[in-house]
Amino acid sequence: MDDSWLDVALDEARTGLASGGIPIGAALVAADGTVLGRGHNRRVQDDDPSVHGETAAFRSAGRQRDYRSTTMVTTLSPCWYCSGLVRQFGIGAVLIGEARTFHGGHDWLASHGVEIRIVDDPRCVSLMESFVAERPDLWNEDIGVVGE
Amino acid sequence: MDDSWLDVALDEARTGLASGGIPIGAALVAADGTVLGRGHNRRVQDDDPSVHGETAAFRSAGRQRDYRSTTMVTTLSPCWYCSGLVRQFGIGAVLIGEARTFHGGHDWLASHGVEIRIVDDPRCVSLMESFVAERPDLWNEDIGVVGE
Repeated sequence: MDDSWLDVALDEARTGLASGGIPIGAALVAADGTVLGRGHNRRVQDDDPSVHGETAAFRSAGRQRDYRSTTMVTTLSPCWYCSGLVRQFGIGAVLIGEARTFHGGHDWLASHGVEIRIVDDPRCVSLMESFVAERPDLWNEDIGVVGE
Repeated sequence: MDDSWLDVALDEARTGLASGGIPIGAALVAADGTVLGRGHNRRVQDDDPSVHGETAAFRSAGRQRDYRSTTMVTTLSPCWYCSGLVRQFGIGAVLIGEARTFHGGHDWLASHGVEIRIVDDPRCVSLMESFVAERPDLWNEDIGVVGE
């Protein structure tokens, strides 16, 4: 994998933010760097809680018969929903923009043999930090955190 | 939860089979038995690998703010993708038709406090057994199993 692949996911995250959504983007990338699919969270835009960045990228890649040599590139540590996706379909690696604002299932994935790289990219960190500060309601809704 | 809720998921699974798809159905049900959302696997019909029965039911239920009192009803033990969905969104319980033809992440969910009930319903077992025998290619694709 190559850290530059993160640019595609970041572009998706920014597109999502620009359309009023939650700024998390992802791409499913082949071993040679070909982008098989890309997408961003569309909870707000489509009123659809099932569209996380990673599931959007996975859907966009269509039906693949073997995911072992692919990398899920995502601006943020994958939640359990998206980590489960990676594990079930045998996606070989996850390239993560940052895991500061949210710590999902990447340790679990690593323990099950998935290659994990966390870039800790300041662009990804600032994008999420700003969003979480501005829209904690939306962010909590997206990860299933229930307010008191 | 009530075992009769399984009928909705089974109806979805049969609908999926009748339209040429993988016969797995699900419903998200409120504590009082209200069906919030329902759906079936649409990998084949929509050419979309992201639509499992459980994710279809979750999407169909729209944006809910609190899933703790809801039950994910599914004809088959949830795969890691769908188990991750249940865990991330704090769905309180999973009612499972059968776990003979496929053993997904339900033990993991139970260890994280999700109430699990496996009905072992012969209608669900025969539906999946027949399908797996007839279309092992599709079934393996749906759970990310790569042939040699």
